[in-house]
Amino acid sequence: MTKITLGLIGYGNVGRGVVNFLQKRKSFFKDKFNIEFELRAICDRSIKKKLPNGLEGTKRLTTDYKKVVNDPEIDVIIELIGGLSPARQIVLEALNKGKHIVTANKSLLAMHGKELFQEAQSCNRNIYYESAVMAGVPLIKMLTEGLAGNKFKSLYGIINGTCNYILTEMTQKDLNFGQALAAAQAKGFAESNPTLDINGMDSASKLAILVSLTMGKFISAQQVYTEGITQISHHDIEHAESLGLTIKLLGIAKKVNHEIEAHVHPTLISKKHALADVNGIENAIFVNANPMGDVLLCGDGAGQMTAASGVISDLFQLASRVGCPADQYLANIYREAPETKIRKIDDISTRFYIRFMAPDKIGILSKITGILSKHKISINSVTQKAHDNWASALPVIMLTDIAQEKMVRIALDKIHKSGIVKSKPVAIRMEELK
Amino acid sequence: MTKITLGLIGYGNVGRGVVNFLQKRKSFFKDKFNIEFELRAICDRSIKKKLPNGLEGTKRLTTDYKKVVNDPEIDVIIELIGGLSPARQIVLEALNKGKHIVTANKSLLAMHGKELFQEAQSCNRNIYYESAVMAGVPLIKMLTEGLAGNKFKSLYGIINGTCNYILTEMTQKDLNFGQALAAAQAKGFAESNPTLDINGMDSASKLAILVSLTMGKFISAQQVYTEGITQISHHDIEHAESLGLTIKLLGIAKKVNHEIEAHVHPTLISKKHALADVNGIENAIFVNANPMGDVLLCGDGAGQMTAASGVISDLFQLASRVGCPADQYLANIYREAPETKIRKIDDISTRFYIRFMAPDKIGILSKITGILSKHKISINSVTQKAHDNWASALPVIMLTDIAQEKMVRIALDKIHKSGIVKSKPVAIRMEELK
Repeated sequence: MTKITLGLIGYGNVGRGVVNFLQKRKSFFKDKFNIEFELRAICDRSIKKKLPNGLEGTKRLTTDYKKVVNDPEIDVIIELIGGLSPARQIVLEALNKGKHIVTANKSLLAMHGKELFQEAQSCNRNIYYESAVMAGVPLIKMLTEGLAGNKFKSLYGIINGTCNYILTEMTQKDLNFGQALAAAQAKGFAESNPTLDINGMDSASKLAILVSLTMGKFISAQQVYTEGITQISHHDIEHAESLGLTIKLLGIAKKVNHEIEAHVHPTLISKKHALADVNGIENAIFVNANPMGDVLLCGDGAGQMTAASGVISDLFQLASRVGCPADQYLANIYREAPETKIRKIDDISTRFYIRFMAPDKIGILSKITGILSKHKISINSVTQKAHDNWASALPVIMLTDIAQEKMVRIALDKIHKSGIVKSKPVAIRMEELK
Repeated sequence: MTKITLGLIGYGNVGRGVVNFLQKRKSFFKDKFNIEFELRAICDRSIKKKLPNGLEGTKRLTTDYKKVVNDPEIDVIIELIGGLSPARQIVLEALNKGKHIVTANKSLLAMHGKELFQEAQSCNRNIYYESAVMAGVPLIKMLTEGLAGNKFKSLYGIINGTCNYILTEMTQKDLNFGQALAAAQAKGFAESNPTLDINGMDSASKLAILVSLTMGKFISAQQVYTEGITQISHHDIEHAESLGLTIKLLGIAKKVNHEIEAHVHPTLISKKHALADVNGIENAIFVNANPMGDVLLCGDGAGQMTAASGVISDLFQLASRVGCPADQYLANIYREAPETKIRKIDDISTRFYIRFMAPDKIGILSKITGILSKHKISINSVTQKAHDNWASALPVIMLTDIAQEKMVRIALDKIHKSGIVKSKPVAIRMEELK
């Protein structure tokens, strides 16, 4: 019988889910896995309110994390308070007290991951973080264990359920952004303050963790070029649909030789691709590994018990390694290939969907294409749509061939300033997934 | 630096892929994972032919497996010869010599798994088998590690690429079975003798492994009720399509209280479900776990390097546990809940698609429905199709409500024998996936 003693810091929604899970499955864990988890301590700001009579079997309830971190009988600290401070301090102190860490704290890892994983190595301890990305969908273990030894060429993720729900509503019910956001909030799929979700920063944090893990360079969320979904119009979704495309907020990472691309933005993909069928709050990751090839993993990327499931799976992974030297490769998030560089967004080349609002006059199209071709942007297709929502101008939709980001930005800026078109052109990147 | 010494038994297609992988990534494994795998010995029936000049770095090339199994300096035996004998003997002897096992041998595990995993436990060694199901798609690690602690309620798998390719061709190109099989063989997606694929036995072996792993009872392939795809007509696929359904060969496992269902057969599912979009040789598994919920995993379930990827990932998992007591829960495939029973196919209840070939006469329908209702089979919908392929009879398609397998068999038999219909009624089970 393997016995692991736990200290839980942060008794919020997920924390309660973890405790619940541990209690309900105690005998199942013993019978099937020969493992016992003992929850020795819980630390929470308002623990007294939450646990007036304490918790059966839990020896210590405290508001002082140091009492948990310093308890010599605790093997593992489960950090579920979120945020950067005091989470960072807690993890550092716990590692130095010889504890392993299980955390669901994506912003902490996306900001301080390098420091924390290096500290973990020097303390010969591990940090487990399955629930930091896509909750309990076992993505981290798939990348670290399931595909161990592979090299990762590209990674496309729908890693924010709120945004995916909003875009799905806009697509399926022809709502505008505001209406869809309201629907998401009504269903509890969006916070009352949804900023970090809809501006893409939540996805950027998750992508930074995945890139650091798979592509040989630690990057922080700030190094991920990020656009949110607030600018997406349901008109563009409509036009896209008519072209056999759909719009998803994707976290995209690619490794080309010694350069890494990492960006989060609304992206047009073919409706035929499996990611196009990932709707509502569901999350998915589509990864290309060498030699394994393409693998798709989908599941519910948020919620109390799904997040708890990830935490519990971390505890099992940890338990299965009791008594062995910390397996370095699990902590290899920081192990860098020094020559690896991050490619600037300006230097990235991709296809674009561009919508111009043009007056219905002869010659406009030639002016636009003239400026585009000056900037080495060739047009793959053009559609001019009649649309009653626009009296004075008609939408002109262009799909470009592969063009350099910087040139597109400059060209669209020129076209806008020249006054040929009625409003700022809308550009949405396209990805051609196998 | 962790160093693991390997003995490879079976130098066929996958074996060569593994050796290739180990050689090409040697420095990558050292730099990134701090792990070195040394291939000390290769055993193959015709090793001399295959390796006239030996293999750089490999000390021993032999046709005698005992020389590999008895080598005290080998930590791990990779068994890739397939089949039951001498594979079973090799694994048993290797375990008793203190070796860990990595195998891709599904028929061995589906037939002798219980014995082998018990032997592994008594030898305090582990058997790793990622590539035994869906090749390198990390399904086994997802179930054992990624979702550790969850209870598995249901599992639906497209786990045979040959059958899925054939059904996809029949669906998309309106081919009959023979034509689609020929196409699969022309592309190398079907063996010249495809029996074990198309009769469902390959899927049954894989399902037996998955059930043993997830549902608390060891079952063998022989205990899985199995139907292949040879009886599927493209007419039924057409009718299904018109009803918003598609036909897949599914491996299905369910756990209800202390009973397990495990069956492999052509199954009608909604075209809206993600599994309906898994086409060609792709494999997929859709699992419902408590508390995690639904998880979908898709990828290429066959091929030299994808299988090699699974073997390598097993080596990494094993390497990460060097020096620790064998983690029992990995080997829990045989750890049974004694009260668990396997439900007989007769007792399973499900919805059915039934096609009768009926003469175009008044009263036929009432005779058919009369017999069905006598057997407690209620009809959900009926469509009568005109179809030029049938001169003397018209296809009558019925979708039943949930009905007991045994009653349906008896009723259809009566209807057939009564001579009301022109030919043996065709019945295909339906599954309603969330």
